[in-house]
Amino acid sequence: DLLEFLEWAATESRYQGLRVLVSAGPTRERIDPVRYLTNDSTGTMGYAIARMAWRMGAEVTLVSGPTSLPEPLGVSVVHVATASEMERAMIDRANDADVVIMTAAVADYRPETVLEKKFKKTQDTLSLALVKNPDILSQLRDHMKPRATLVGFAAETHDHELYARKKLREKRLDFVVLNDVLEPGAGFGTGTNRVTVYAADGGVTPLAQADKLTVAGLLLQLIRTGREV
Amino acid sequence: DLLEFLEWAATESRYQGLRVLVSAGPTRERIDPVRYLTNDSTGTMGYAIARMAWRMGAEVTLVSGPTSLPEPLGVSVVHVATASEMERAMIDRANDADVVIMTAAVADYRPETVLEKKFKKTQDTLSLALVKNPDILSQLRDHMKPRATLVGFAAETHDHELYARKKLREKRLDFVVLNDVLEPGAGFGTGTNRVTVYAADGGVTPLAQADKLTVAGLLLQLIRTGREV
Repeated sequence: DLLEFLEWAATESRYQGLRVLVSAGPTRERIDPVRYLTNDSTGTMGYAIARMAWRMGAEVTLVSGPTSLPEPLGVSVVHVATASEMERAMIDRANDADVVIMTAAVADYRPETVLEKKFKKTQDTLSLALVKNPDILSQLRDHMKPRATLVGFAAETHDHELYARKKLREKRLDFVVLNDVLEPGAGFGTGTNRVTVYAADGGVTPLAQADKLTVAGLLLQLIRTGREV
Repeated sequence: DLLEFLEWAATESRYQGLRVLVSAGPTRERIDPVRYLTNDSTGTMGYAIARMAWRMGAEVTLVSGPTSLPEPLGVSVVHVATASEMERAMIDRANDADVVIMTAAVADYRPETVLEKKFKKTQDTLSLALVKNPDILSQLRDHMKPRATLVGFAAETHDHELYARKKLREKRLDFVVLNDVLEPGAGFGTGTNRVTVYAADGGVTPLAQADKLTVAGLLLQLIRTGREV
C-alpha cells in the first residue's frame, strides 16, 4: 500500500479535520440459514468515496454490507449484513460526522420471518411474505450535527429526475447523486460511473463518465465546495 | 500459475483420458433489474474439485454460477446466472462426460415474474410469488452415457442421513456428498470442509475435515475407485 500512501500524501487536503461517514454495498435479508434476498450493489462506488475522502485528509468510517472488496487503507470499516444492522451502525455514528454519504443499496424489504431450518421444496409455488425495512436515509438528518452535510444516492431505472428531486426534499438531503442503473458504463457492477448531482439549492451538475475513483474525487470536491458556500 | 502447472505435473494422473463436468456456485433469481434471490454458496468446493480433477489429468468443464473466484488453470469455464441457464448448460454437456459432479447450490424457487422496472416501496408488506425451479440433478442421468458416474451434493441443516439416502435413490446418483452447513468448519463460505460420502452400493465414507482442495482430492480418488469396482 505504499502507492496508496503516496496518493494520500500528494492529494490536496481539502477534507483535513473533517469526519466523513460512508455506507456501501448491498444488504442481505435472510430467508433461512442458506437463502437470502439481496441486490447487485458491489460496494465499488462507496469504497471509492471512502478511499478518496481519506486521501483528501478526512477521518473516514465506512459502514459496509457484504462485498468482496479489500478494506481501504486508513479507513475504519464496520461490517454489517442486514438493513437493521446498517441502520444501527449509521445512526450510532451520524452525530460524529461532518459529511454523511449513503451509497449503500439497502434492501427495501426483508422476509417477515427467518426460518431456522432450510425449507424443503415440497410445493410447486409458494408465497414469500415481505415487510418493509427501515428507511435509513430519512432518519439520518435527525441524528446529525446542525451544519453537517447529508448526501444520498439514487439508482433509478425510470423517471430519474422526478425521483431524485423528491428524494432530496423528503429525506432532507444536501445532495442526491443519481445514476441510471440500466445505462451502459454506469451503476452496479461496472468499473465506471456516470452520475448527475442534484443540490438542495437547485443546482444540477452532470459529471463526466469516468472510473469510480475519479467520480468519487469529483463528487467530494463538489460536496466540499457546497459546504463553503 | 507456474506453481499450479507444477502441481498438475506432479499429481498422479488417475483421471487421464476422462472428461469431468462440474457445476459450482449459487444461482441468482431476479426479482427486478437490481434485486435477486440467492444463497450462501461461494463456489469454493466446486472450483476446488475442478482444479483437482485437472491436476489429476482430466479434461474439465466447470459450469459456474456467479462467484468472485478466479477461473482455474486449464479448466474450460461456462458462466451462468439463473437455474434455467445452469440447467441448459449442464444438460447440453452431460453426454460428453465420464463423471458429472453437481456441487452448485441451485435456487429451488424463482420469482414467478421478473419485473422490468425496479419496484417502488409503497406498500408496508408485500407477497412475493415464487415458482419451483427445474430439478437439474434428477434430469442428468437421462442425458449421460451408460457407465458414466453421477455425483450430487447435499447441504442439509437437519435429518442429514435420511435426506442423503433419499437423494441418492431418487436422483439415480452413484454418490452423494453430504455436509452439514450449520457445523463449524464445514459448508458455505468456509475454507475447510467435512463431508460424508454415501455410495449407491451402500458404502459410507466419512472424510476427515481438511481444506477444500484436499477434500476435493480425496473425493476424486473415492469416485475414481468406485468407477473401477
